[in-house]
Amino acid sequence: MKLDHTAKGVFAITVTPFTPDGAVDAASIDRMTDFYQSCGVSGLTILGMMGEAPKLDADESLSIARQVVRRARVPVVVGVSAPGFAAMRALARAAMDAGAAGVMIAPPPALRTDDQIVNYFSQAVAAIGPGIPWVLQDYPLVLAVQMTPKVIRQIVTDNPSCVMLKHEDWPGLEKISTLRLFQHSGSLRPISILCGNGGIFLDFELERGADGAMTGYAFPDMLVDVVNFYTQGNRDTAHDLFDAHLPLMRYEQQQGIGLAVRKYVLQKRGAIAHDTQRAPAGSLTAAARAEIDYLLARLALRDPRAALVASAEVKP
Amino acid sequence: MKLDHTAKGVFAITVTPFTPDGAVDAASIDRMTDFYQSCGVSGLTILGMMGEAPKLDADESLSIARQVVRRARVPVVVGVSAPGFAAMRALARAAMDAGAAGVMIAPPPALRTDDQIVNYFSQAVAAIGPGIPWVLQDYPLVLAVQMTPKVIRQIVTDNPSCVMLKHEDWPGLEKISTLRLFQHSGSLRPISILCGNGGIFLDFELERGADGAMTGYAFPDMLVDVVNFYTQGNRDTAHDLFDAHLPLMRYEQQQGIGLAVRKYVLQKRGAIAHDTQRAPAGSLTAAARAEIDYLLARLALRDPRAALVASAEVKP
Amino acid sequence: MKLDHTAKGVFAITVTPFTPDGAVDAASIDRMTDFYQSCGVSGLTILGMMGEAPKLDADESLSIARQVVRRARVPVVVGVSAPGFAAMRALARAAMDAGAAGVMIAPPPALRTDDQIVNYFSQAVAAIGPGIPWVLQDYPLVLAVQMTPKVIRQIVTDNPSCVMLKHEDWPGLEKISTLRLFQHSGSLRPISILCGNGGIFLDFELERGADGAMTGYAFPDMLVDVVNFYTQGNRDTAHDLFDAHLPLMRYEQQQGIGLAVRKYVLQKRGAIAHDTQRAPAGSLTAAARAEIDYLLARLALRDPRAALVASAEVKP
Amino acid sequence: MKLDHTAKGVFAITVTPFTPDGAVDAASIDRMTDFYQSCGVSGLTILGMMGEAPKLDADESLSIARQVVRRARVPVVVGVSAPGFAAMRALARAAMDAGAAGVMIAPPPALRTDDQIVNYFSQAVAAIGPGIPWVLQDYPLVLAVQMTPKVIRQIVTDNPSCVMLKHEDWPGLEKISTLRLFQHSGSLRPISILCGNGGIFLDFELERGADGAMTGYAFPDMLVDVVNFYTQGNRDTAHDLFDAHLPLMRYEQQQGIGLAVRKYVLQKRGAIAHDTQRAPAGSLTAAARAEIDYLLARLALRDPRAALVASAEVKP
Repeated sequence: MKLDHTAKGVFAITVTPFTPDGAVDAASIDRMTDFYQSCGVSGLTILGMMGEAPKLDADESLSIARQVVRRARVPVVVGVSAPGFAAMRALARAAMDAGAAGVMIAPPPALRTDDQIVNYFSQAVAAIGPGIPWVLQDYPLVLAVQMTPKVIRQIVTDNPSCVMLKHEDWPGLEKISTLRLFQHSGSLRPISILCGNGGIFLDFELERGADGAMTGYAFPDMLVDVVNFYTQGNRDTAHDLFDAHLPLMRYEQQQGIGLAVRKYVLQKRGAIAHDTQRAPAGSLTAAARAEIDYLLARLALRDPRAALVASAEVKP
Repeated sequence: MKLDHTAKGVFAITVTPFTPDGAVDAASIDRMTDFYQSCGVSGLTILGMMGEAPKLDADESLSIARQVVRRARVPVVVGVSAPGFAAMRALARAAMDAGAAGVMIAPPPALRTDDQIVNYFSQAVAAIGPGIPWVLQDYPLVLAVQMTPKVIRQIVTDNPSCVMLKHEDWPGLEKISTLRLFQHSGSLRPISILCGNGGIFLDFELERGADGAMTGYAFPDMLVDVVNFYTQGNRDTAHDLFDAHLPLMRYEQQQGIGLAVRKYVLQKRGAIAHDTQRAPAGSLTAAARAEIDYLLARLALRDPRAALVASAEVKP
Repeated sequence: MKLDHTAKGVFAITVTPFTPDGAVDAASIDRMTDFYQSCGVSGLTILGMMGEAPKLDADESLSIARQVVRRARVPVVVGVSAPGFAAMRALARAAMDAGAAGVMIAPPPALRTDDQIVNYFSQAVAAIGPGIPWVLQDYPLVLAVQMTPKVIRQIVTDNPSCVMLKHEDWPGLEKISTLRLFQHSGSLRPISILCGNGGIFLDFELERGADGAMTGYAFPDMLVDVVNFYTQGNRDTAHDLFDAHLPLMRYEQQQGIGLAVRKYVLQKRGAIAHDTQRAPAGSLTAAARAEIDYLLARLALRDPRAALVASAEVKP
Repeated sequence: MKLDHTAKGVFAITVTPFTPDGAVDAASIDRMTDFYQSCGVSGLTILGMMGEAPKLDADESLSIARQVVRRARVPVVVGVSAPGFAAMRALARAAMDAGAAGVMIAPPPALRTDDQIVNYFSQAVAAIGPGIPWVLQDYPLVLAVQMTPKVIRQIVTDNPSCVMLKHEDWPGLEKISTLRLFQHSGSLRPISILCGNGGIFLDFELERGADGAMTGYAFPDMLVDVVNFYTQGNRDTAHDLFDAHLPLMRYEQQQGIGLAVRKYVLQKRGAIAHDTQRAPAGSLTAAARAEIDYLLARLALRDPRAALVASAEVKP
């Protein structure tokens, strides 16, 4: 089943589990896939930045993609961003052959002008072929590429296979409003907008017109609930739940160690066996682990599903 | 009274109030100075980035500095960052002559290597003279300059007049721990560490050894309370209050429109007459104002001092 | 006499002379102004980056502008780039009052998208007023802002007071061709295009449609001759003279010490009394000075006016 | 034969030849390898940035490395820079197994502080293993990473397998002098220093202590002669030859289209069958081709080996 513009809900950005010696942890890949699905996510996005994709070699990437696709009962989007189009095409085609629902493409950091950005994505689509549905990643804080709403509209218009925006501009609330205005006024065809940035603005992003989240916060079940509360019209309830998680979400948003926080919590939740990252990686000090444990204990007072997590003991 | 390394508590980063036509709003400067002091701050920091300092001409900057210093009963730190040392020296000396407690210096964005950074601050001190106490601003997210703890130690060691670090590296918790470890092991003389980043990590920054906050969140009275609760050993109470404000603090942290959020709330609090910014400036849409109002209303349920603010009506 | 789109020939980017203690060297300002004029330049551009403008305070900048305008018999363009519009307006208006022919504006480094760039210049013109002719500086290598030909066309169209492009994109030959094509096809009104980049592509820039050079190479008389040879149709002669200077021009193009090279040669030519720069500044080692002397000696074999320069002795 | 610190002369940075449809042009790889060797180079460096390495997939890279190593009678250095260490290790080991003399590693663009840079190369060596000789690439203009001489010394000291610096800092003459001073004073063990930057400062780099060039200028035979003239003590002759080529070298240095210029000239020299690049690529207009032809015709007047090149006709 291929990805299309009607996608909504929560697509979890998955981590890539490693064993303590740095090898891909195949057993944890299945466990993690099951975990995310048990959280009620609508889809999975693998081999993104938070999946340490650049640290994998070509064979490892493809092998992971095949395993997740085989295991998952929800659509799987595969990150195929690469320094060049040959590598992007190789992975995109192999992933689709393996049953992926679509791919995700981020712009390389050197792009500056509107035309450079628009041309890059046209070349990318020419490379992978026009039949692969793809997600446009807009993440200026980390990628250093700034796309205006007009540029996004141009990319979507030029490339019918672009079906989703992974929106993580920051700030980005007005951007969602502008894109939806374009759509309502007929100058932009419908696309799915799922939001990243660790979910830190999801509460208002939904109100501005987003279809859900595509992010990796270690409680995807909370993200699912927030989307559902919002969809059902329970605005205050959605905010209450969201606010309860905000201290931890904020802690996870620390660039450089955010992934370490996320893997630590996922390990405590039993989703992966180890919180190992490949080098280069930020790691957690004992003080940081204690802070996370404290945040989890506080969270447990407001969201019961954190209770077991807070008390779980894991080997550093 | 000159700034020294014993400074602690909250130094409010002040805005610069303008009238709707863009002129400096002298009446609001006094009102704002009184407001911050009524919040219990230990000091004021004027003419920083959030004070729109680069948008002022030389005469305006000095005039504002003189007015705030004259009005304030707490120490005033004056931001003197400038593209060149002649302008930095001119403002630093005039501000100190007017009674400022010290100055604050941020590195220019082109600095890359450790030596470039260290040399820059030596040249800055040579320019303003060795007798002016100064605050080192470490804000990589916006300034694009990355200083390791070792580099900060070198700067502090080379320049006896450096008495405070405005710490807003992100993430930065380990940095505080490392600097305090340097200090405890005798390789770094004592300095005051006040934290920025809109206060978004203040809860743990205090626990890591910070002396307080130097930031501009529109509820400096909350920051003061958090510092006090922490100092008194009421950890959970400090976190409870902090967490209640986090949704709004997070909203204020949006780059490009953060200052607009801050000025809007300060206007609602009566601290300034208008939320006007000089160009170039991000502005708030009606949707954004409604979101802030909603956040204030929710905050009022947990912090009573937000109640009046939430219901205050102001002219956009 | 105000600057307009018919400007051509060579506008020398002037240095700012300092005495060895770092004070502005007023005597050298007159000497330097006379020197440039004796080289046959069509105009002067003062207070640019190579004029160490950011290292001057507001009073110094204005004082220098007044002195040069008073002394010069050719049009004077004043660089007014500033971190904010208040300072830009103050200098622009005072410079025009003093008799300047126009001003030059460079974009600040944070601009990324096409719209950000276009809006910035509209705001700048709103700040200085619509009656001041101005030069758009396009220098991505140093300013980190990339403007496409379409963006330049938009800026010129939006702002009738923009009369000249200081073109120093690199590479930039096709950009000149594209802009002239726009002009010939009627989508861009005529503007003057003078080229920077130390003149290092001037030979072909003229052939692509540039009107001359606006740069600071220490032999502006050579630049004048090259423009004249080209205008007279002596292509090979123009290239022969240009090529003779290329080894030294290339040497002057070293970022960080290029200004030191330029001031050293200007001092040897008698144009300024000292080669002092204000901090921060790159300086020349004895080895570098010997290399420049060697290049001048080699140049003297092909361009006789270098002979005296090569043998001139100056105090380091 | 493995690369060591005694390497000197010219290592040609090779292009990667493609057929017009974008496939790797295996026939041209042999032809090109023979061409470079006929120019008298001491070694070849393949799969660098100018070799369009990021545009190749993993299998293509290895296949090219094997073919060149099999054909060459001089040492071959293989560029293994990659976004992650798994891909770097895979290529490095396979290339060494195939008979390469060593590998070259460039830093990723995010590195800022001295410690980040030093740590990165330690991790890279840990990844590829300590037994593979490698070249440290220092190219701030394009890579955006600035390494001081002290940092280079630290990297060389920490990693015995680092045997060569590809020096292309700009400006960089003083850097060579400082490194050689370190070496002479005993604080740095001997390393080979070969210079890049298109050779544009080679004339003085040799005089400052460089051992030769590692660059891709389309007349590597000229670079070989310049190194030989210098080594034999014929300084003026070396400069005369160098200066004759400088107009073309300068033209080739245009970022974005430099590789197009280089491939066009190599095609005219018969080194490769087509000047095709993979996307994204800058291309040459008819005007640019005419300019190169003119430069070649002028060069032929001073260097006879350019005569045939100038008149060669190739299909665009």
